[in-house]
Amino acid sequence: MADFRSDNTLGCSPEIIEALRRASDGSLSSYGADPITGKLRERVRELFETDLEIFPLATGTGANCLAIASMSDPWSAVFCHADAHVYRDESGAPEFFTHGAKLVPIAGGDGKLHARDLDAVFDDILSTGRTATPGCLSLTQATEAGTIYTPDEMREICSIAKKHSLGVHVDGARFANAVATLGCSAADITWRAGVDMLVFGATKNGAMGSELLVVFGGAEGELARRIHRSGHRFSKMRFLSAQFEAYLTDDLWLKNARVANGMAKRLADGLRAIPSVEILRPVEANIVFARFKPETLTALHDDGFEFYDWSLFGPGSVRLVTGFSTTEAEIDRFVASATEHSKR
Amino acid sequence: MADFRSDNTLGCSPEIIEALRRASDGSLSSYGADPITGKLRERVRELFETDLEIFPLATGTGANCLAIASMSDPWSAVFCHADAHVYRDESGAPEFFTHGAKLVPIAGGDGKLHARDLDAVFDDILSTGRTATPGCLSLTQATEAGTIYTPDEMREICSIAKKHSLGVHVDGARFANAVATLGCSAADITWRAGVDMLVFGATKNGAMGSELLVVFGGAEGELARRIHRSGHRFSKMRFLSAQFEAYLTDDLWLKNARVANGMAKRLADGLRAIPSVEILRPVEANIVFARFKPETLTALHDDGFEFYDWSLFGPGSVRLVTGFSTTEAEIDRFVASATEHSKR
Amino acid sequence: MADFRSDNTLGCSPEIIEALRRASDGSLSSYGADPITGKLRERVRELFETDLEIFPLATGTGANCLAIASMSDPWSAVFCHADAHVYRDESGAPEFFTHGAKLVPIAGGDGKLHARDLDAVFDDILSTGRTATPGCLSLTQATEAGTIYTPDEMREICSIAKKHSLGVHVDGARFANAVATLGCSAADITWRAGVDMLVFGATKNGAMGSELLVVFGGAEGELARRIHRSGHRFSKMRFLSAQFEAYLTDDLWLKNARVANGMAKRLADGLRAIPSVEILRPVEANIVFARFKPETLTALHDDGFEFYDWSLFGPGSVRLVTGFSTTEAEIDRFVASATEHSKR
Amino acid sequence: MADFRSDNTLGCSPEIIEALRRASDGSLSSYGADPITGKLRERVRELFETDLEIFPLATGTGANCLAIASMSDPWSAVFCHADAHVYRDESGAPEFFTHGAKLVPIAGGDGKLHARDLDAVFDDILSTGRTATPGCLSLTQATEAGTIYTPDEMREICSIAKKHSLGVHVDGARFANAVATLGCSAADITWRAGVDMLVFGATKNGAMGSELLVVFGGAEGELARRIHRSGHRFSKMRFLSAQFEAYLTDDLWLKNARVANGMAKRLADGLRAIPSVEILRPVEANIVFARFKPETLTALHDDGFEFYDWSLFGPGSVRLVTGFSTTEAEIDRFVASATEHSKR
Repeated sequence: MADFRSDNTLGCSPEIIEALRRASDGSLSSYGADPITGKLRERVRELFETDLEIFPLATGTGANCLAIASMSDPWSAVFCHADAHVYRDESGAPEFFTHGAKLVPIAGGDGKLHARDLDAVFDDILSTGRTATPGCLSLTQATEAGTIYTPDEMREICSIAKKHSLGVHVDGARFANAVATLGCSAADITWRAGVDMLVFGATKNGAMGSELLVVFGGAEGELARRIHRSGHRFSKMRFLSAQFEAYLTDDLWLKNARVANGMAKRLADGLRAIPSVEILRPVEANIVFARFKPETLTALHDDGFEFYDWSLFGPGSVRLVTGFSTTEAEIDRFVASATEHSKR
Repeated sequence: MADFRSDNTLGCSPEIIEALRRASDGSLSSYGADPITGKLRERVRELFETDLEIFPLATGTGANCLAIASMSDPWSAVFCHADAHVYRDESGAPEFFTHGAKLVPIAGGDGKLHARDLDAVFDDILSTGRTATPGCLSLTQATEAGTIYTPDEMREICSIAKKHSLGVHVDGARFANAVATLGCSAADITWRAGVDMLVFGATKNGAMGSELLVVFGGAEGELARRIHRSGHRFSKMRFLSAQFEAYLTDDLWLKNARVANGMAKRLADGLRAIPSVEILRPVEANIVFARFKPETLTALHDDGFEFYDWSLFGPGSVRLVTGFSTTEAEIDRFVASATEHSKR
Repeated sequence: MADFRSDNTLGCSPEIIEALRRASDGSLSSYGADPITGKLRERVRELFETDLEIFPLATGTGANCLAIASMSDPWSAVFCHADAHVYRDESGAPEFFTHGAKLVPIAGGDGKLHARDLDAVFDDILSTGRTATPGCLSLTQATEAGTIYTPDEMREICSIAKKHSLGVHVDGARFANAVATLGCSAADITWRAGVDMLVFGATKNGAMGSELLVVFGGAEGELARRIHRSGHRFSKMRFLSAQFEAYLTDDLWLKNARVANGMAKRLADGLRAIPSVEILRPVEANIVFARFKPETLTALHDDGFEFYDWSLFGPGSVRLVTGFSTTEAEIDRFVASATEHSKR
Repeated sequence: MADFRSDNTLGCSPEIIEALRRASDGSLSSYGADPITGKLRERVRELFETDLEIFPLATGTGANCLAIASMSDPWSAVFCHADAHVYRDESGAPEFFTHGAKLVPIAGGDGKLHARDLDAVFDDILSTGRTATPGCLSLTQATEAGTIYTPDEMREICSIAKKHSLGVHVDGARFANAVATLGCSAADITWRAGVDMLVFGATKNGAMGSELLVVFGGAEGELARRIHRSGHRFSKMRFLSAQFEAYLTDDLWLKNARVANGMAKRLADGLRAIPSVEILRPVEANIVFARFKPETLTALHDDGFEFYDWSLFGPGSVRLVTGFSTTEAEIDRFVASATEHSKR
């Protein structure tokens, strides 16, 4: 019927497959010295309107943790939202890559960190010198709650982080969805706001597996060695770069994100018309959190719709994720079924 | 002219691109619960004629180190050949994944470990109880020197390892090349000989990036968690599995390996006819180590042939790697040029 | 005038120096195979009325982290109070010893964990299987706030921990102070309540540097190796054991603790009589937290009294620690001065 | 009869016990801010005739590994002799403290590294950039074989290490024995020769447990944090410093070492007179390696003499260690017994 479990249960854009096919022929230098990666670097510099370095990687977990580790010592604190993927869903991957840094979870409404809360938390952990040294702040954009930081919010948060000597990392698994909503330049919510490293995701938005670690300001330090040492250095790197180049060509990244975001909006609009359904978070990207009557959920599952319960947000809560290949027909089928079942 | 730098500078088999295209459509469960991965598991069980578990991964570094870590404690010894990739070329990746196990290099002619040497080395490190506890033995098949362990050699080595309570891991980046040469069952040089875990490589033999960690005997323990924690768990795992399934279909893996091995043999045969050239290692897989006069090397590079100097084997030594897409014309051009330049 | 900074700014009981002198002569087996350590083991078994294993160590940081590490995997969660020393004051030592376990801070009044809060916290972290696996719960007895868990509280907390497959560790830097107050058997607040490992501190209560890691239930696993590997295995272990034996002889541990506790009570009683002074936490061991007018604090410092500001508990807050060598005269001088200064 | 097992089976000099007694009274700042530690720092600066920083620690394992870790990255190589304690006898402690650096063992006669071998080994590991980055070279002075590096040897070795960007660490568990033999200034075989960090041992030479990490050149970096994080920061540091101050007072360190060295010489001289006994290594410090007929060893053990077999040096080999409290009578008894038993 429709699969709203996650953006990673969906497939891959044909443009990306075609780019892989084109890249598959002939011999090229390995480990990123190939012209496809070289061209991608130039393209990303244009997009972000600045000098920068890129590291094509295959998984978001790896890319995020490598960025975090390169900005931390083993005795540092890494701050993040209490619902952040790096805190809740990675089996301690950041602790592994950092050799034991302390992940400090921070609460915040709508899945976002709020500038007003940060000074006190940073002070609490960093001021004695005995708990941890400043490592970095990790933000997610769009957040795990499907919400988005504005350029102003980013600037304010980054400024507080800098005051406490923290680097700023952005987990951009859904970065395209954020830019598509904000309509801003990619630079405005990254380096111009104070971000040091961005993991620019493509996997969740139509690629097979390609995440670009973007380092602003030339401080990539030992990243190459950390990437090698953790097994994340692709020998045939051309195939990661080719995916990303296709992703950026003709704004495929934004087109795919606009579809996903639009479908989430259509879904939320449809569900809002059902009296017994409650939308739990602002719908700013491609995720809808909603609460249904338990019997409605059972009926929807029975109909064959796929989605995850999200008891973290209370009983009856579910998470509905749309993606680049979600169709209006899928949305409309789901809304119609939910409407129908809710009447009982 | 021709690229003999490494099997990872070559591209990707069309069959594998086609499999990715087929797998790209529609929604499927992520993280390996998809039917493509399920079917692959069955296929690998047939191939190895036993029950086993598989973990599709993207890089050999990651796969090898995950296997090694799952068979070691942080205070264990991991034994390997002094020229093993895991010892020499990974920026300490095994030490990272194991949280500090001691890699113990062992010398051995033709890039191979020899059973007669092992007892003494194992005793030296393990007998006092103060140096390290038994972790595992890591073998490479085919070896970094382009040589191959026979089933008998594997059995004898594994038996000594077991006597010292060591698990056995095989780095099979060029496993297909070994099987193609030996003409044996894949089982004969793995679990039947005493191997516990195999990294069955496809990347160097025509895939984009797909390595299968094969666990014999059901002792996969905490591997899933280690894979997650190190960022090697692909969300869209179907795309790793699809590559490998195409690799095994219609014996593509063996066909590709036979081409590579055959080209290496053709190359070695051609070079042996040149009086001033010396072949430095037995040519049993897809790698030829040879020594040339320095001026010949300069001339070959000037002609546009690509290959790496291998000073580890003495001055004038080079490594020539053939692959699934190497052609007879490339070999013949190289041999002709080398013959010509050697006359001067 | 008087030093209330910490119990570790005080010296060493003469009985302990004398025991070191006695132990200093002649040759004895190293690394704990000496008769002094053997006799200590028997003595500790008597005291705790059960079989157990002991590991004499020199620092509390080391001892606590070794215990925690032996009950955790690198991907485990270690739960503790948000004010626990292992969370706030160790530069990430538990993360170092565990190779990256996640320390999860839990809030709780009076420096104590409260049974009613624990189920929800444990579930939040452990239930998805993606955040962390069960490691252990670390309690401090007496707590960093100078409060004490009763045997009933210990039993209830341990029971919830066990339900979630968590081991239980007790940081007993001030264990003697707790037993002296409770008047119970040492067994009642340890293994009988469900504690798996206790760090039985002597350093803060009159020893030079001697902390006994006590393992109940025979599950000491790889502790010996972890101790060796972290540099905490004393070659001349007799000198750690001799300190502890003297500590247990003729109840020196309880006598010293009773002095320290009594002085804290005397101090609190004296301060309670001053209208402008507020006692901030129940005084159950040897620590008094109090709030003074800022000018009183300045005057007390000017008088030469030594103590630390404790802004964690609000402006004007200080921590006053008494010890085995604190005298009534010191207390009375401080109370008199505080009384005098408060009048202004 | 006599205990030749190790210098750590012996007791403690009375002067050191007396210093502990003197230090035991009254309150002093903890963690090294006490005047005893301050005075020690000045005394050590005088002794080494230079500015330097000191970190009083309790175990050699800890002190050596902390020094090594502060000069290495997790991806570095740490070079040492194949028989070095840090390689053979520490359950992987250096790997733990460094988060996985690669310990590279180097063979060398008489337990010493020889300058002529080093360039090739360093190049082999460091030149590709893929094996490891330069960490440090760890030397032992006096060596585990009871031999000694001269100032000239130290200078030459350090100079090669510097050329390869390696820091130099000296494990000086028996540093006093080396200085006593060489009769040089402590500076001559440390910073003047190019040594960056020295672990100046007292434990094996009459202290209870006190090792001074001496950092030349002011580059102590994150050592304080590493010491804290690994549990090696003594709260009552005065008691480590007091031991060391007594050790340096009136040349106790040299007096004790001269006794130990003299007894080893007397022992070796006595044994050399026995035709069936072979002295296996030059006797330059306080260790004698000798080979006896098996039946002689049995008889000596039966007589009650204590010493360790040292099969590393071949069958019938033993290690005989003398110490600050070894007496001429003990030596003479042993030689007499050995002479007597050898006649049979």
